[in-house]
Amino acid sequence: MTPGSGEQSSLVTQGIDDVAKAAGVSTATVSRALRGLPNVSAKTRQRVEEVARELGYVASPSAASLASGRTRTIGLLTPWVNRWFFSNVIEGAERTLRRVGYDALLYTFDIAREQPRRAVDPSVLHRRVDGILVVGLPLSNAEVASLEALGVPLAFVGTGRDNHLTVRLDDYDAGQCATAHLISRGHRLIGHVTGTPDEEHSWSPPAARHSGWVDGLRAAGIEPNPGWEVNGNFDVQGGRASTHALLDAHPELTAIFASSDEMAMGVILAARDRGLDVPRDLSVIGIDGHDLGELVGLTTISQDASGQGHRRPSCC
Amino acid sequence: MTPGSGEQSSLVTQGIDDVAKAAGVSTATVSRALRGLPNVSAKTRQRVEEVARELGYVASPSAASLASGRTRTIGLLTPWVNRWFFSNVIEGAERTLRRVGYDALLYTFDIAREQPRRAVDPSVLHRRVDGILVVGLPLSNAEVASLEALGVPLAFVGTGRDNHLTVRLDDYDAGQCATAHLISRGHRLIGHVTGTPDEEHSWSPPAARHSGWVDGLRAAGIEPNPGWEVNGNFDVQGGRASTHALLDAHPELTAIFASSDEMAMGVILAARDRGLDVPRDLSVIGIDGHDLGELVGLTTISQDASGQGHRRPSCC
Repeated sequence: MTPGSGEQSSLVTQGIDDVAKAAGVSTATVSRALRGLPNVSAKTRQRVEEVARELGYVASPSAASLASGRTRTIGLLTPWVNRWFFSNVIEGAERTLRRVGYDALLYTFDIAREQPRRAVDPSVLHRRVDGILVVGLPLSNAEVASLEALGVPLAFVGTGRDNHLTVRLDDYDAGQCATAHLISRGHRLIGHVTGTPDEEHSWSPPAARHSGWVDGLRAAGIEPNPGWEVNGNFDVQGGRASTHALLDAHPELTAIFASSDEMAMGVILAARDRGLDVPRDLSVIGIDGHDLGELVGLTTISQDASGQGHRRPSCC
Repeated sequence: MTPGSGEQSSLVTQGIDDVAKAAGVSTATVSRALRGLPNVSAKTRQRVEEVARELGYVASPSAASLASGRTRTIGLLTPWVNRWFFSNVIEGAERTLRRVGYDALLYTFDIAREQPRRAVDPSVLHRRVDGILVVGLPLSNAEVASLEALGVPLAFVGTGRDNHLTVRLDDYDAGQCATAHLISRGHRLIGHVTGTPDEEHSWSPPAARHSGWVDGLRAAGIEPNPGWEVNGNFDVQGGRASTHALLDAHPELTAIFASSDEMAMGVILAARDRGLDVPRDLSVIGIDGHDLGELVGLTTISQDASGQGHRRPSCC
């Protein structure tokens, strides 16, 4: 339906019988045509759509959902909307879903260090969604099992397990590559500022990036000191606080690999707080390719976050 | 229902009759209790909830929606998710809606200068939402009328008209205040980098911020040259391109008021492109209070975007 006419009549719901009668088809055909189901010819579908538009008939999504058992809605589960990676994935996913006629239901689960995260409640998703996309939200095994039990497709972006549809950066490679880059610039005392690797998830991004950092150092004959890594909040101010803690304990470090660009920006702010020049006194590398990295000349391992929101997974 | 048990049985839907029988109440009471409707005692509600949980009964949202005529869902309409203002408002709104038991359906309408924006289609919202929150999306009068015709509450954040519920910055004041700040620092040749004021909307943020800039200059006895303003994309790269155009035509300008922090960051990038030092050669002020403004020492008129997503409007 084209909007904007401002005619209220176009929003008064007519009966499906009226549409069927005017189009000269059965009500079942009207229903199938308007819900995009198969077994309706393109010509008939077009005719039904025209008549429905003329009569201002709009199918009730709830009724259509009950009839088809489908909601044409995908639930997006994410900890944050206002951070670079998450906002780009969500925007990419929503635009792609819209193009294929699906709605996006948004569910956020704030992760604060001070308190446990609100658990994912599968009952709110039951019969509301045809599929679930988990965007960068670390889930417990029990939460994953409860989502699987909903019986709808479950996919992950930015995190996920081997046995699930997953679109993500190769976090291990990214960590190794970032570390190798700093080593190639002559650094050997390289700290790591990151989030908290979940014990339950060896596949979480902080865990995989940590392993890449460790192996990157060892490949150059450097044994990483466990004290060179600080786990804090995965954002700008977290990166800043972690860097202060790191440099208080290990002022000998000459470079820091931050697990995200937002944390890397926090490293730069902390360096400035301490009167250190970046990169003269301290080199920094992040992961993301944040749009605003150019402002501070940030070196980064970039990933296409928006693309991860709409891309077909290359492996699963 | 508490999640995470991983027991599939908890997600097998039992009939409402089973719950009513086990709880010793009518099915109507079960329905009212689980949908949070009044006329059910707290004790009965608790008993029904316990039994429903034990039996793994989950009401079908579609059926509940048909029965009540309510969806407990709010549609969020926005041009972007991955920009500072929008992502913060959306996150603030979603968290607040979740707290009061509502879902957020996300609809994005990309605004690109090269092509017309996809029109808002009210039919996709019909019977799907109990209310609509328009986040920084400039709508045509016809689009507003078509949304009003849906018969559900319509509210605006960041833009909106006098006769609608609106939560927004006082854009005129913000423009005047930013301009007055630059004048107080001795500037008289002050450019303005902003988006495109919609002819149809005298109340759009670019229009109101423009008026604040004009009146701020005039209050100091300065007549603004229309060529001192450039209208471009309302983002970092838009601010950068607009600044190059502005300074090509008016190299005499010593300061720029940008209509957002992201555009102000673009002004800073353009200044660097041209070998200009900020603030020595060019002063810059933005609007927003962007989290990353500190990285470049940005002066700004700040607003609480997340708060605008959950706040009660102070005026309407």
